[in-house]
Amino acid sequence: MANSASGDSVVDRVVRVIAAFPEGVAVLQLSELAERAGLPLSSAHRLVRQLAEHGFLDLGAGGNVRLGMRLWELVNRNSPTLALRQAAMPFMEDIQQVLSRNVNLAVLDGWEALFVERLSRRGSVANRARVAGRMPVHISSAGLALMANQPRDVQAEYLGQFSDPGGKVTAGVVRQLLAETAQQGYAQLAGVVDPDTWSIAVPVVDGKRRTVAALGVVLPLAETRPQALVPALQTAARGIGRQLDKLREG
Amino acid sequence: MANSASGDSVVDRVVRVIAAFPEGVAVLQLSELAERAGLPLSSAHRLVRQLAEHGFLDLGAGGNVRLGMRLWELVNRNSPTLALRQAAMPFMEDIQQVLSRNVNLAVLDGWEALFVERLSRRGSVANRARVAGRMPVHISSAGLALMANQPRDVQAEYLGQFSDPGGKVTAGVVRQLLAETAQQGYAQLAGVVDPDTWSIAVPVVDGKRRTVAALGVVLPLAETRPQALVPALQTAARGIGRQLDKLREG
Repeated sequence: MANSASGDSVVDRVVRVIAAFPEGVAVLQLSELAERAGLPLSSAHRLVRQLAEHGFLDLGAGGNVRLGMRLWELVNRNSPTLALRQAAMPFMEDIQQVLSRNVNLAVLDGWEALFVERLSRRGSVANRARVAGRMPVHISSAGLALMANQPRDVQAEYLGQFSDPGGKVTAGVVRQLLAETAQQGYAQLAGVVDPDTWSIAVPVVDGKRRTVAALGVVLPLAETRPQALVPALQTAARGIGRQLDKLREG
Repeated sequence: MANSASGDSVVDRVVRVIAAFPEGVAVLQLSELAERAGLPLSSAHRLVRQLAEHGFLDLGAGGNVRLGMRLWELVNRNSPTLALRQAAMPFMEDIQQVLSRNVNLAVLDGWEALFVERLSRRGSVANRARVAGRMPVHISSAGLALMANQPRDVQAEYLGQFSDPGGKVTAGVVRQLLAETAQQGYAQLAGVVDPDTWSIAVPVVDGKRRTVAALGVVLPLAETRPQALVPALQTAARGIGRQLDKLREG
């Protein structure tokens, strides 16, 4: 049995190994994995072998390491976002069909919008919101829609710590954006991430009046009245909130 | 630093805790989690707190435990199936649009088809192949399409260990099914899982002539010529294989 001190250390190492893969990188050489996890090669090798026995990692010929299918399966079949995504998917398909737009769903995690689902259409404009991608609150319409509808103390904490790495945006500007978003019921941003697109997002509110997600679309900047899409998004968002309540009750 | 014995033990426990959530169950009480993981409550609590610090679990008020958003994010942004799903998604959308059917994508994991992606249409028939769901090879068209195109030694090993929990199906019957599937280039099953549906699946083959996935649709049993859909599926499967090669090169 592990004592607490060694236990701490092993849990930390397991986390570091699983978290060592940079975004979008599915395969790492064992030596690179060890370096990224900050572990001696021998320790990394032992840990990788143990995790591979359980299917949490996959150790291939030549020392290629991947995340394991069993870990993927466990995390996705019991996903913390499962009910939300189940509730949202039919309505996201509706939006995709009716508006012919990329549509995405995000939750607030820390001070970022974390995108948990996305449907894209061939021929539609770029949508940077990959699944499991993140964007800072103040440069994503999803982030603004989420934050604008959080309790006042959460917003105050967010604004209190806010600083723009680019140095251009002040907390005062963000406060103004949040106030506008809350007042008009949706967030709209032009060309912040991609200069050729608008993004629009509305809050998804559950039966306890908590804003649990944001539903958004991305559309070309040439579209002069993006806000015309808002009623469709709001309708879908209400459906998602209602369905989520049903799934939670059931 | 952990010695090997305690290290083994902690890794095993981490795995047991993360794997303790039954399929589709997103929340467990700490006491139930401890029982399912086979751990004393105090050990489970300590481990859960450690994993929660890293965002691998979420420990809520009242001892509610969920898988953590950070674990979900890490696994999905570096998914072992990422390239396959990226390659497949546009073609799956094409099939969904053209055939108006539920469409799914599976890989072979052990002796089961593991479903890694799915698109469903409202109004289409039930599709039991949930994302991150599994079905034994011999009762799923995806499983048959995958196994029928594996190397001979893999098929021999599979048939050698085969036994039907229901006791009705023999290894000889499965061998015959696999031979038919290989010969005709697709798998077709009627009513095995759901008595009101057909399922059809074709292999997805990469540039090294390895069968890496199966692409399938589910349709009502009332449809008398399901095999009429096979050319569309085969066309999409070829597109997926080609795109997968491109993603791997790039």
